[in-house]
Amino acid sequence: MVTIGEIAKAAGVSVSTVSKSLNGYQEISEKTRQKVKDVADKLGYTPNAAAQSLVLKKANTLGVVYEVEHGLKNLFFAAVLEAFRRYVQSKGYDILFLSNNTESKFDYLKHCQSKNVDGVLVMSTDESYDSVRKLVDSKLAVITLDPRDSTDNSIYSDSYHSIIKSTRYLYELGHRKIAFINGSYSNFVGQERLKGYLHFMQEKGLEPIYLKDHSNESYTFHEGYQTMKLLFENYGLPDAVCTVSDLMAMGAISYLHNHGYHVPNDVSVIGFDDLDICQICTPQLTTVRQDYEKIGVMAADALFHMLDQNVRQLEPMIIDTSIVVRDSCKKRTV
Amino acid sequence: MVTIGEIAKAAGVSVSTVSKSLNGYQEISEKTRQKVKDVADKLGYTPNAAAQSLVLKKANTLGVVYEVEHGLKNLFFAAVLEAFRRYVQSKGYDILFLSNNTESKFDYLKHCQSKNVDGVLVMSTDESYDSVRKLVDSKLAVITLDPRDSTDNSIYSDSYHSIIKSTRYLYELGHRKIAFINGSYSNFVGQERLKGYLHFMQEKGLEPIYLKDHSNESYTFHEGYQTMKLLFENYGLPDAVCTVSDLMAMGAISYLHNHGYHVPNDVSVIGFDDLDICQICTPQLTTVRQDYEKIGVMAADALFHMLDQNVRQLEPMIIDTSIVVRDSCKKRTV
Repeated sequence: MVTIGEIAKAAGVSVSTVSKSLNGYQEISEKTRQKVKDVADKLGYTPNAAAQSLVLKKANTLGVVYEVEHGLKNLFFAAVLEAFRRYVQSKGYDILFLSNNTESKFDYLKHCQSKNVDGVLVMSTDESYDSVRKLVDSKLAVITLDPRDSTDNSIYSDSYHSIIKSTRYLYELGHRKIAFINGSYSNFVGQERLKGYLHFMQEKGLEPIYLKDHSNESYTFHEGYQTMKLLFENYGLPDAVCTVSDLMAMGAISYLHNHGYHVPNDVSVIGFDDLDICQICTPQLTTVRQDYEKIGVMAADALFHMLDQNVRQLEPMIIDTSIVVRDSCKKRTV
Repeated sequence: MVTIGEIAKAAGVSVSTVSKSLNGYQEISEKTRQKVKDVADKLGYTPNAAAQSLVLKKANTLGVVYEVEHGLKNLFFAAVLEAFRRYVQSKGYDILFLSNNTESKFDYLKHCQSKNVDGVLVMSTDESYDSVRKLVDSKLAVITLDPRDSTDNSIYSDSYHSIIKSTRYLYELGHRKIAFINGSYSNFVGQERLKGYLHFMQEKGLEPIYLKDHSNESYTFHEGYQTMKLLFENYGLPDAVCTVSDLMAMGAISYLHNHGYHVPNDVSVIGFDDLDICQICTPQLTTVRQDYEKIGVMAADALFHMLDQNVRQLEPMIIDTSIVVRDSCKKRTV
């Protein structure tokens, strides 16, 4: 690799002048700067990002804390991360997946400072780690997706109104015995979804059908299957089922099929997320679409904004959702 | 942040001694090193990774070139990357997703040198980019997954023998009219899979049923559906269908269902990959399992080996596959 010493020699200036020219110091004349640049280009000089980042305090790198169950195989988080990745890269930034296994074990803040990242996106389903908390509370530019509590500097879909929307959709199809397949009872997103369901059922004077003491933490096919089983065994066959994830909806449909019921002829089931697989499962899934694209892009834009404007506090960004109608829900005919 | 100047002052030694102590230079006595370390710890010093990487020429960072259709929503590549990520992080390394949109547009080699990554994993479905070629041919430690051609420093599943295995599996269930849903005809992996199919059919004296002039580049549900349609319209109903991806198998099954045929009662269909969704689709998919876990871990180990031993050339690593039996294939009864 070409050194700045070699550039200095070829350009007939001092090493310090080369360094200042390449790093954009004002005290260097435009003429000298241009000469140094030409020589550097001619010699094929590659600025070392580590050296530059020391001088400029800017690494063109965004960190990602990614502590998600099933990792990149988690279809929801992977879809958001994909949108984030594409947008961030279009701006010339790299993404650093921050390991949690460094010397400063689990101390993300120290790790981020050490790696000199410009900002951090936190995608963590277990924010209770003190380490993530410390990062979020630091002076770094940090945005959290689906936070454990509603806080500043976070982004999430409007869970409460989304579930009201999907329950209402089932209601308007004529269903009254509407069961609910819940998510986590210990975090913000899961609690909001339950609240939305209970609110709507109460408003319509309908009896809620759900499991009060059965928190689901993983939003998986298996949890959907099990919850449907318990609902069925405790309350009999519902008209319709409102769920909090597409995979749980597919689990519920599988349970119903295995017990001789047809979806949507006997029971309507609505999902949540709008994963790509909604279009390839049978029946194709009617669901609530989380706008991954928007979430990923807005999270990145928020980080860029924090860096550009040197602000560190943003109101929570709450993203709207929409119903995508496919084949798993149907008007009540009886 | 604490500077090494402050440590020097507190420890009563020179800045240069602190720097050499912290960076492990031999010329510093063990006693001095320990004193400096104690003071640094007491003051809460965080070594700056950018500065360290300049001195040590080691960033504890592996780069990933990830130019994959559908990005992280590509279930196969995401699954391998997840295994790679977990293993690499367990070793205390971070992963840098290398943007292709830097100043040195698409010049991955320059970009890697600039960011000072220790090694690179290339996951690219379009290696024809000169940029990726240049990276692979450089002196960096680089491993390529599913390369465009069979080359050194690459890792891939044994496509040829895998398809022989899956075609034989259908044959041993009694099927003779075995159709083939192909992948790409222009890259190594796709060509090997076709070769395996043709080899087996010829060995058994059976007529191959496939589309000679219809290359599929994306391995999607939609391509599987379309290819099944063309096969059916040109050759009628087969006994069984051998495919090159799980999504294509699901597309084929969907086409068959839509035209009144039952899988596996009327037609057996076998997939390729063993994505998680094989277990939640209906029927659950019998398939060829690519060992993601092993691929991801071996790719990382190969990079670590290249770095530790300072070698830059490794034989291709060819990973074995296995048949996973579920519900989409059945003994021929007629």
